Amino acid sequence: MSAAQSLPRVAVVGASGYAGGETLRLLAGHPELEVATVAAHSSAGKHLSEVAPHIDLGHDPVLQETSVETLRGHDVVVLALPHGESGRIAAQLREADPGVLVLDLGADHRLESAQDWADYYGTEHSGTWTYGMPELPLAEGGRQRDQLVGAREIAVPGCNATAVTLGIVPLLRAGLLDGTAMTAVLPVGYSGAGRTPKQHLLFSEAQGSAAPYAVGGSHRHVPEILQNLRRAGAHGDLSLTFTPVLVPMSRGILAVMNAPAPAGTTTGDLLEALRADYSGEHFITVLPEGRMPSTGEVTGANTVRIGAAVDRRSGQATVIAALDNLVKGTAGAALQSLNLALGLPETTGLSRTALAP
Amino acid sequence: MSAAQSLPRVAVVGASGYAGGETLRLLAGHPELEVATVAAHSSAGKHLSEVAPHIDLGHDPVLQETSVETLRGHDVVVLALPHGESGRIAAQLREADPGVLVLDLGADHRLESAQDWADYYGTEHSGTWTYGMPELPLAEGGRQRDQLVGAREIAVPGCNATAVTLGIVPLLRAGLLDGTAMTAVLPVGYSGAGRTPKQHLLFSEAQGSAAPYAVGGSHRHVPEILQNLRRAGAHGDLSLTFTPVLVPMSRGILAVMNAPAPAGTTTGDLLEALRADYSGEHFITVLPEGRMPSTGEVTGANTVRIGAAVDRRSGQATVIAALDNLVKGTAGAALQSLNLALGLPETTGLSRTALAP
Amino acid sequence: MSAAQSLPRVAVVGASGYAGGETLRLLAGHPELEVATVAAHSSAGKHLSEVAPHIDLGHDPVLQETSVETLRGHDVVVLALPHGESGRIAAQLREADPGVLVLDLGADHRLESAQDWADYYGTEHSGTWTYGMPELPLAEGGRQRDQLVGAREIAVPGCNATAVTLGIVPLLRAGLLDGTAMTAVLPVGYSGAGRTPKQHLLFSEAQGSAAPYAVGGSHRHVPEILQNLRRAGAHGDLSLTFTPVLVPMSRGILAVMNAPAPAGTTTGDLLEALRADYSGEHFITVLPEGRMPSTGEVTGANTVRIGAAVDRRSGQATVIAALDNLVKGTAGAALQSLNLALGLPETTGLSRTALAP
Amino acid sequence: MSAAQSLPRVAVVGASGYAGGETLRLLAGHPELEVATVAAHSSAGKHLSEVAPHIDLGHDPVLQETSVETLRGHDVVVLALPHGESGRIAAQLREADPGVLVLDLGADHRLESAQDWADYYGTEHSGTWTYGMPELPLAEGGRQRDQLVGAREIAVPGCNATAVTLGIVPLLRAGLLDGTAMTAVLPVGYSGAGRTPKQHLLFSEAQGSAAPYAVGGSHRHVPEILQNLRRAGAHGDLSLTFTPVLVPMSRGILAVMNAPAPAGTTTGDLLEALRADYSGEHFITVLPEGRMPSTGEVTGANTVRIGAAVDRRSGQATVIAALDNLVKGTAGAALQSLNLALGLPETTGLSRTALAP
Repeated sequence: MSAAQSLPRVAVVGASGYAGGETLRLLAGHPELEVATVAAHSSAGKHLSEVAPHIDLGHDPVLQETSVETLRGHDVVVLALPHGESGRIAAQLREADPGVLVLDLGADHRLESAQDWADYYGTEHSGTWTYGMPELPLAEGGRQRDQLVGAREIAVPGCNATAVTLGIVPLLRAGLLDGTAMTAVLPVGYSGAGRTPKQHLLFSEAQGSAAPYAVGGSHRHVPEILQNLRRAGAHGDLSLTFTPVLVPMSRGILAVMNAPAPAGTTTGDLLEALRADYSGEHFITVLPEGRMPSTGEVTGANTVRIGAAVDRRSGQATVIAALDNLVKGTAGAALQSLNLALGLPETTGLSRTALAP
Repeated sequence: MSAAQSLPRVAVVGASGYAGGETLRLLAGHPELEVATVAAHSSAGKHLSEVAPHIDLGHDPVLQETSVETLRGHDVVVLALPHGESGRIAAQLREADPGVLVLDLGADHRLESAQDWADYYGTEHSGTWTYGMPELPLAEGGRQRDQLVGAREIAVPGCNATAVTLGIVPLLRAGLLDGTAMTAVLPVGYSGAGRTPKQHLLFSEAQGSAAPYAVGGSHRHVPEILQNLRRAGAHGDLSLTFTPVLVPMSRGILAVMNAPAPAGTTTGDLLEALRADYSGEHFITVLPEGRMPSTGEVTGANTVRIGAAVDRRSGQATVIAALDNLVKGTAGAALQSLNLALGLPETTGLSRTALAP
Repeated sequence: MSAAQSLPRVAVVGASGYAGGETLRLLAGHPELEVATVAAHSSAGKHLSEVAPHIDLGHDPVLQETSVETLRGHDVVVLALPHGESGRIAAQLREADPGVLVLDLGADHRLESAQDWADYYGTEHSGTWTYGMPELPLAEGGRQRDQLVGAREIAVPGCNATAVTLGIVPLLRAGLLDGTAMTAVLPVGYSGAGRTPKQHLLFSEAQGSAAPYAVGGSHRHVPEILQNLRRAGAHGDLSLTFTPVLVPMSRGILAVMNAPAPAGTTTGDLLEALRADYSGEHFITVLPEGRMPSTGEVTGANTVRIGAAVDRRSGQATVIAALDNLVKGTAGAALQSLNLALGLPETTGLSRTALAP
Repeated sequence: MSAAQSLPRVAVVGASGYAGGETLRLLAGHPELEVATVAAHSSAGKHLSEVAPHIDLGHDPVLQETSVETLRGHDVVVLALPHGESGRIAAQLREADPGVLVLDLGADHRLESAQDWADYYGTEHSGTWTYGMPELPLAEGGRQRDQLVGAREIAVPGCNATAVTLGIVPLLRAGLLDGTAMTAVLPVGYSGAGRTPKQHLLFSEAQGSAAPYAVGGSHRHVPEILQNLRRAGAHGDLSLTFTPVLVPMSRGILAVMNAPAPAGTTTGDLLEALRADYSGEHFITVLPEGRMPSTGEVTGANTVRIGAAVDRRSGQATVIAALDNLVKGTAGAALQSLNLALGLPETTGLSRTALAP
């Protein structure tokens, strides 16, 4: 108890959703942080055990209203809200608690370009926060990790953006992909679509069906991915055609990326470039030649697993990255950045072991 | 009964597998054909109700051994065997019954090029039969349908090949796709992998996982697809990068195809070209702009549903085709060709209505 | 067309739901009926292809408002509405079209006892219609089938009630079950819970979970089942403990029923009693000793498959019945009764072959 | 590292199966044990990452042959083998390493009665080990926990047996159930059926189907359950009718148990008895009145969640227990007993938080 008193106190907002719930699941196993407040919107007033019976915090908190009054006085506030809602509350929090560390699991603060935001979201831009992708190598050298140490405002990356970015970046940097003709097709699970009831998310609708959406370039993770690629050093006209496909699983993203490779490029070249950029990265595994990842290998783990191959007949490179959209794609990435921001070991409370079968 | 005596008598070989079982399911509802013999290999001697309790033929036949003795004396023999096995039995049958109509649901007789066969299968080529894809438009005019009338040896197309071919062909013919840089990523169900027990096909392995295979150009449907595209009039160096992904569903293929489109190409242009080539095709539906197909719309039906869009930012065309791998992808396509070969109405015993949810 | 003009004209109300959609799926294959009108509530104004793209009626009707004006002038009206809504519209229809045949897929007109209705539904009783379970053997001899010929108001049974009733009735009639201590546990699919979005019906909630509901005696199918058992000749104090469990499948009910059997009762005795009562019943299959049904054998078919066994150690009889809740449990049963009411062959448009895998 | 040297060294046999894999998954997060050896049979020679890519032990061991030579010299040996195989190897191990702690995840050493063993397994009995169910209250007072401290041979309970035993025991002890007429129907996931490829375990067979097995009293967990009930103090003729049903999920058991309750028994009485027996039990949660557990709440956790209700109309009590067959049903229970045997805190390395959705 007395020990717990001295731990950084965390508030999680949006605890009744999947991203918020996953954040609490991971915090329940984090030895250096204390969940002090759990807040929600429509579920406020319920016990956590009613909306997330799978989580054991050692106690069963009542979900609080989402307000500055509720959230002030914490060391860390994690916002798991629909995009558009975190900007306002974050601004008020900042005023009430100048020193508080705020992480936004939503999209509001990921993009640097107000124009991109306007093009894809059509609302006013809330500004840009430190991007929470520690492994991203930067054009100027070093990694995004360095900018997260001591950060006070962290924009957690989009789940699809993480899978595509981490799969492509090393190959683009090594000049092994034609960045002007990249495609990504992503079989994804349903938890990424959120917990708000909608007909197309019903079990009976999803079961036995593969259902594409946002076809034709409208997906909002595209500008985020291109921004990442540029920050990592990719030059020239980058172009990505992006097609997510809902498939009957709860978790998981399998990003299948194709792009022309320079003549003579081998599978070994691709894997070597991936290993070079990710050597020493605890949460990224580059698979040996001849093996490809599946999402079943990463369920519940904070890992990205990447395979690659060159089709000698077509001359195209195929890169495949698998991750759990709720962990490395959202809540795990948030804790990883949170650890860095607070000066804790980056891997604290995060596992490389998945749940299978 | 007496009426039944006068119907063409069909033998189905490989009835204990998924392709053979689906053929029987459809034949059970076909008013102009009689299932006279059901044969199998390891299941020979069992009743059909033991290996396929979902099928009601009005009687419960015993599965016969697969031999020329068993199969001679039928009007039609449908071979649902692993590739490599149908060539031999077909040759013997031809000798015993010169007039018999033989359909091969396997791959043995699809490819025209012995070199392609050698490259992808590594065995001796069994020869080339009439290709069972009625809707395929031909370079010389007309459709593959014309060649199936009266045919006596029919090679039923591969399920993935059907989805990709029918999605791409009209766009290539209209010059709306760059055929040198085509990619296809296909979330597919498990029934396509057959009914022989293998660890990676177990429910617990498949559940919650998206698992790619044959990455890097080795998939055997690629030469079949390119052959189709050429026969339909595509010129020059065609290149297709092909990545199937097993997802947790029993049936269904969602072929997601990308290729650069000429500057200025619109989504409307793509849909117009698709409608032009498929106008009047009973089993192909081109969706209106803004809609994309899902596999849940075609389960159990003999239909292909196609959507398309141009990404104005990337300049790529995305074409998506959905079908049921066991129906339009295999057994339904076989019956459609069988109807043509026997001079029956092409749609006899085939439905455009699917089972959902 | 001209032929079609002369067919009985059917209106289906509630076409955007699962029961209504399944009714249309089956009507699409019914040769003796014409779907003249399709009506809905919130989806009125949409094309059928927007809410049920898997159905091909040969045309794509616009969903009409649900009103007497829309529904008058048909030979048959099928009501697929939430309970409580069909009573009112049915009364108005009767007035407008004294001769119209109305089938209610909902619960409003199933119960004979207004007290039972009040106890389980807590609203006013809408009255009792002819019960649409043709195979139900009656205490006075004959079957429910006889009462359906020429009926003008048909209450289609509940899906769970059908599975439990048909499994138990012959054994109770033969004195092989202790009717005072019957239990039923039913793994059921999600389509039975309807298409209205609710959080517990989301794919991510359902996936990987078996979730019981209505535990402790509140399920509304219980009085319907007991009513059926009594009409079939069961005497004395009947008692049924009923526990449905939602499991991750779209369709299917597996009713597992247990009750003490008289000393010395054998599995053969149970099967003999089942076969005796169901001999000649086209849509009921009693399995041989040692085999039990699974729901995968009946998907899309209008069949009930029943197995039974006695546990010699415990002296209890276990009876297991499998059916597709949307077909034999709802829409197929409706068409079967509709055929009888119109004097068509009872099996018209209904299949005993299921879709598997 | 040096610290690791001083930890008890564990060998896991059968690492390529689901029970062995889950044991390793949990050991990967256990701070007080070192996985020193991983052994298998047909997979010997492969790296762990090839057969269980989801597990990260910090290194990637090669699977050793299963032999006394490989297994001698460890502090703990966990046997995850098909029943019948652990008896022999255990005897040899005991001789080679008199002090080694051996846990058998299989059935060989669970039953006390050689007659029961012969009746249900038909082979020679291997003897009886200390039963690994710490929470089991004993007739003579105290719990099974007490007997596990310092034990050297531990028989880990069957997964179904754990769910049924823990759900029923307190109610029988309190005289709230009629033990002569108990029934249990258990929707169960596929991982309980093992990882050896069999046709009925294929994804396409399992998907969309609820499939009962071992109906009629043959299930081998029945004598184990009755043995547990007697040890807990149940008297007289106990009778349990047991019906497992495979449903489309990988993990999870939902045990639905029914038995007559004494007149006047209320739901509150049942819950009070359950709470009384399990007060202070870290891994057992008794739910409040009106709530029932689902398996989705326990995936990956070492917990049992129990709900109960009385049906006032039928007078039957319904008790429902949910657990993860691979964790609290197998590997988690093993670690819990292992902790007790080694004098470690019982909860070390075990979590009450599950993975959802």
